[in-house]
Amino acid sequence: MIVFGIDPGSQRTGYGCVVTDGRRHRLLACGAITAPARASFPDRLSYIHAGLARLLAEQHPDCIAIENIFHAKNVRSALRLGHARGVALLAAAAAGVPIAEYTPAEIKRAVVGFGRAEKPQIGRMVTLLLGLDAAPASHDAADAIAVALCHIHSSSGAVAEAWRAHEPKPQGTAAKKLTSWRQYRP
Amino acid sequence: MIVFGIDPGSQRTGYGCVVTDGRRHRLLACGAITAPARASFPDRLSYIHAGLARLLAEQHPDCIAIENIFHAKNVRSALRLGHARGVALLAAAAAGVPIAEYTPAEIKRAVVGFGRAEKPQIGRMVTLLLGLDAAPASHDAADAIAVALCHIHSSSGAVAEAWRAHEPKPQGTAAKKLTSWRQYRP
Repeated sequence: MIVFGIDPGSQRTGYGCVVTDGRRHRLLACGAITAPARASFPDRLSYIHAGLARLLAEQHPDCIAIENIFHAKNVRSALRLGHARGVALLAAAAAGVPIAEYTPAEIKRAVVGFGRAEKPQIGRMVTLLLGLDAAPASHDAADAIAVALCHIHSSSGAVAEAWRAHEPKPQGTAAKKLTSWRQYRP
Repeated sequence: MIVFGIDPGSQRTGYGCVVTDGRRHRLLACGAITAPARASFPDRLSYIHAGLARLLAEQHPDCIAIENIFHAKNVRSALRLGHARGVALLAAAAAGVPIAEYTPAEIKRAVVGFGRAEKPQIGRMVTLLLGLDAAPASHDAADAIAVALCHIHSSSGAVAEAWRAHEPKPQGTAAKKLTSWRQYRP
């Protein structure tokens, strides 16, 4: 399964494409789309949209995972971020594959195990989980890979099934049926 | 000159297309793009983008005027609105014509003469200015026409030139050169 992760932003939109067999993950591509600084805002949005559309056509992902945002410094930055995420979602929708959304806390928890992890920690964990020689060049790329890994970890579909098949079988299902400690037999 | 006005929104995106010779304006098309209520958010964005792209291809405007937003109830609504405005700007940028942005206060001031005008006032003024039989069916359409009219009124290009040609010539330019009331000669 190929998962394409997106970390949307009006300055830089990070992307990270990961292929997985359910146990081992491999990085296919990652980077950040940076619109030309002097371009008008509509042209910057076009640049982000075209860049993502091209990458999605190249990578042919089975699923797209994108960071969901509910908070921002203020209304103005929320508006700017919303514009960038809107065109990113549009490119994702055009790819015709399922789109999964995860909050920053979910992503950090899935990758670092801690919802308030810092950016360098994410970079290090992404490097470790994918067996990379060095951390991705940009934080935006690392964040996007983290979104893809979060989807792989929390996916209830094929990948989670594959994970489960390799996990040790539970000793019994008694624990679920107990309604009182009196029934407990060690 | 044909001006295509857009009033972006995540629920409904209003549009209004006005043709003008600089003195008289005529409505070519207006309405609101309402995405299916049950569609996912990415699909709603695709619907808005596709709808605007189709209308812009039909109307061939010389310029697109779009409402600019700096305020919202809260960060969450700013994010939603940002998404919708992002895909609207993307459709506008793809049309390859100049894009002008106006704040709600500028639009109201240009059309009603009062920056805090209410929606019904905008509907009435739009009806009057375009000589329509009835006000546009939706507030979103009326607002979008108001954006187009605002651009026509405040445009410094061809239309403003045309306006100026029909205005009475100023009596003199003395007023600008005065630096003291002592120089004033009635």
